[in-house]
Amino acid sequence: MRALLLGRYQPFHRGHASVAEYALDRYGELVVAIGSARQSYTPANPFTGGERVLMAQRALASFSTKVFIVPVPDINRYGLYPHHVADLCPPIDVVLSNKPLIREIFGDAGYKIEDTPEYERERYQGTVIRTMMIQGDEAWRDLVPPPVETVIDDVDGAGRLRRLHENEQR
Amino acid sequence: MRALLLGRYQPFHRGHASVAEYALDRYGELVVAIGSARQSYTPANPFTGGERVLMAQRALASFSTKVFIVPVPDINRYGLYPHHVADLCPPIDVVLSNKPLIREIFGDAGYKIEDTPEYERERYQGTVIRTMMIQGDEAWRDLVPPPVETVIDDVDGAGRLRRLHENEQR
Amino acid sequence: MRALLLGRYQPFHRGHASVAEYALDRYGELVVAIGSARQSYTPANPFTGGERVLMAQRALASFSTKVFIVPVPDINRYGLYPHHVADLCPPIDVVLSNKPLIREIFGDAGYKIEDTPEYERERYQGTVIRTMMIQGDEAWRDLVPPPVETVIDDVDGAGRLRRLHENEQR
Amino acid sequence: MRALLLGRYQPFHRGHASVAEYALDRYGELVVAIGSARQSYTPANPFTGGERVLMAQRALASFSTKVFIVPVPDINRYGLYPHHVADLCPPIDVVLSNKPLIREIFGDAGYKIEDTPEYERERYQGTVIRTMMIQGDEAWRDLVPPPVETVIDDVDGAGRLRRLHENEQR
Amino acid sequence: MRALLLGRYQPFHRGHASVAEYALDRYGELVVAIGSARQSYTPANPFTGGERVLMAQRALASFSTKVFIVPVPDINRYGLYPHHVADLCPPIDVVLSNKPLIREIFGDAGYKIEDTPEYERERYQGTVIRTMMIQGDEAWRDLVPPPVETVIDDVDGAGRLRRLHENEQR
Amino acid sequence: MRALLLGRYQPFHRGHASVAEYALDRYGELVVAIGSARQSYTPANPFTGGERVLMAQRALASFSTKVFIVPVPDINRYGLYPHHVADLCPPIDVVLSNKPLIREIFGDAGYKIEDTPEYERERYQGTVIRTMMIQGDEAWRDLVPPPVETVIDDVDGAGRLRRLHENEQR
Repeated sequence: MRALLLGRYQPFHRGHASVAEYALDRYGELVVAIGSARQSYTPANPFTGGERVLMAQRALASFSTKVFIVPVPDINRYGLYPHHVADLCPPIDVVLSNKPLIREIFGDAGYKIEDTPEYERERYQGTVIRTMMIQGDEAWRDLVPPPVETVIDDVDGAGRLRRLHENEQR
Repeated sequence: MRALLLGRYQPFHRGHASVAEYALDRYGELVVAIGSARQSYTPANPFTGGERVLMAQRALASFSTKVFIVPVPDINRYGLYPHHVADLCPPIDVVLSNKPLIREIFGDAGYKIEDTPEYERERYQGTVIRTMMIQGDEAWRDLVPPPVETVIDDVDGAGRLRRLHENEQR
Repeated sequence: MRALLLGRYQPFHRGHASVAEYALDRYGELVVAIGSARQSYTPANPFTGGERVLMAQRALASFSTKVFIVPVPDINRYGLYPHHVADLCPPIDVVLSNKPLIREIFGDAGYKIEDTPEYERERYQGTVIRTMMIQGDEAWRDLVPPPVETVIDDVDGAGRLRRLHENEQR
Repeated sequence: MRALLLGRYQPFHRGHASVAEYALDRYGELVVAIGSARQSYTPANPFTGGERVLMAQRALASFSTKVFIVPVPDINRYGLYPHHVADLCPPIDVVLSNKPLIREIFGDAGYKIEDTPEYERERYQGTVIRTMMIQGDEAWRDLVPPPVETVIDDVDGAGRLRRLHENEQR
Repeated sequence: MRALLLGRYQPFHRGHASVAEYALDRYGELVVAIGSARQSYTPANPFTGGERVLMAQRALASFSTKVFIVPVPDINRYGLYPHHVADLCPPIDVVLSNKPLIREIFGDAGYKIEDTPEYERERYQGTVIRTMMIQGDEAWRDLVPPPVETVIDDVDGAGRLRRLHENEQR
Repeated sequence: MRALLLGRYQPFHRGHASVAEYALDRYGELVVAIGSARQSYTPANPFTGGERVLMAQRALASFSTKVFIVPVPDINRYGLYPHHVADLCPPIDVVLSNKPLIREIFGDAGYKIEDTPEYERERYQGTVIRTMMIQGDEAWRDLVPPPVETVIDDVDGAGRLRRLHENEQR
């Protein structure tokens, strides 16, 4: 079976990696859909779609034959979104999400929906990591897989985010 | 180094696989950008973006840690296209293409461009394969990697194409 | 004469029905333009364009030869919006609205603008009805025409809205 | 049951009216989806979406409580098109079409598909009518329902088409 | 009065300059709308919007206080196009065009339309100039104002066009 | 050299004019890119792209041979935005901006970035001027160049803004 995980992955962190491993173990194959793929250079979405493809693929390298990583742009039509995702991704047997909106729209589109376990959700959250980067707290490094840290450093991601945050404060 | 190969991959065939192997051998990593990712169900573009992601990943499974497969929608602005591709793909060091248009726009955008060898180009061409499918000539099966054949059969791809062709004739 | 009424109709309620009857009585024919037609599955816009078409047509069934119901997607360009509406709807002689923005843009586009009476506006408001649904208050049923209630129940509209609201709170 | 008829209706002619009556008789309710709703002022698509809404509603006035007329813009993504239509129209139980493309994409999207009878298809065709208008042949008037003739004359539709044709010849 | 001239200006040539001078002489002010502003790097539209802005402004430099040069992207909706142009350009009193389509849509949108004189139309045509460039015929230089020649040479415009043409032949 | 100034110019005020003069003096030529060109009739963006083209050109009339005024629509993709601007504007040698976001995205796109002096920034701000207009404070007239005042009065800009503000309060 092939499961779908949907996220913005800003950035791809250890919580994402854990859920992906769980899903691979349980379903065999996995589509990692990178949502809001065209959003970048904002405080909530600092990384480009391409940077996030690189993060996810590096982080999940040991499962690479069984993982499909697909950037998915927004279409701003929830009634159509599940079909938009399906059009760009390999066929999906089950959607893994705890988010009511995702469960609602994919459920109404006829998909089988299942919960995902949440690995220390308080700790592993994109917003926590981005706040650390803005505050210059290097502890964000512990929250992402090592190859993601490299991808972020290669583009001075923490510095970029700090400057984008400063832009908002101005 | 990371090279870019751009194509529509309708379908992904043995010629594509050969060029990908050449590129991996020469540059180490490869981005396979699936162009016109939102086009499907037409005689020239019968397969969806998701079906083509599946074809490419299956065909290149033995190199999966070094290959990035990225569906790229059209934007109908050639002056912007190289940057659109760059926004959705991991960073690219060299663009491999023999097509004058691609060489022109990526060259003007500052990319290094190189030729690709062409493996029996008369034989391995999307248009040849699609014509065979329309005519019911099963020889198309020899022109694609075995896992691509499976992907196509799973969606009755040859039948779909025949019906789409019939639609045009009507 | 043919009058235009513009709204999001989330959902179509008795206040809308009253204004429509007033307009039909006064002008003879009516275009009901369903705005933000592609928005759905959000707390402010829970119903799809198609569901709202069905609501409006059922609610106004007794005037169906004189009413044109047209879903109109947003274009996010107010300077162009009146012409966008005009392009998708039968010709309009007068625009009925109390909303300053609508009066301004249609006025600048050369349309005749008139006020609409407001039927118990405190009571009949989309936002009031949606809040009731979220809170599980069944009194919303009194605020919509009976056939609209059926349309909403057929898609478990109140449940959908509750789950969408919960999504925002998470 | 509610059936879907999809067409461009350039213009809405007696053949369309016959199929609509057949569908209403057989299924009870009908959605008339006006495709390419934003195309107008071209030789193949001379009339605006709004003009075509008016034609269809006038032509089908005697069934107005059972017919839903919905302009549907193109999205240029066949893999998504059936869902796009579904998002804007009341729920559909069966799709009536003889066109292989429509049958293929709605079939793959899970819809029940049925044939439509063709009423003197040689005679009642949009392209035949438009050619008559371009050539100044008044016989087009016999091919459309009388209220459609009025809608066309009100915008000097035949003259418009002649001038658009002349534009192409230049 | 302020007149509108609409063209693609691929490239801006002496015929365009003559009409502009005529219009300035007759109406006082002029809007030069550069159509299909986002098309570039095709045989019919080789130059970017920005390159064409530069051509037009250099060619009309002696009238620069009275000329407004505005790139206008396509919207592919003729019924809306005149309003789209109006939204992006200073207010227009008269539209100058001999093209039936432009006359039709701007006329229906309520604009005053006037003919333009044609200055040796056989000679001064974009398509003639582009064909010369493709064939390596340097006579194109005589057909454009000297500063336009400079703009074209600065981007190796003739070479670009030749390569784009070659792309089509492949 | 040719410098780029990017702004929304809602409206074009004396602060903008001062920076433009500084830039012309220092670099010789100037591109004034009018951002969010399709936004209008909102409290933050009351004026159309065309009205702002007219304001900027009138305000900078004495430098008209050296200034390029280009309306630039949003694309909502910061990773692509600098290239989008470049596609529509004459070639740019340096970007003048104090805004961290603009500096970040144009810097990452390879542009040279420089600071601009700020002329009494507390006083000359779009938001200050728009607030004055909403409050009926005629002092806004002192903050814009005289020809801009005329453009605004010609469309009753202050009245428009007041009515748009009232719309939000409703």
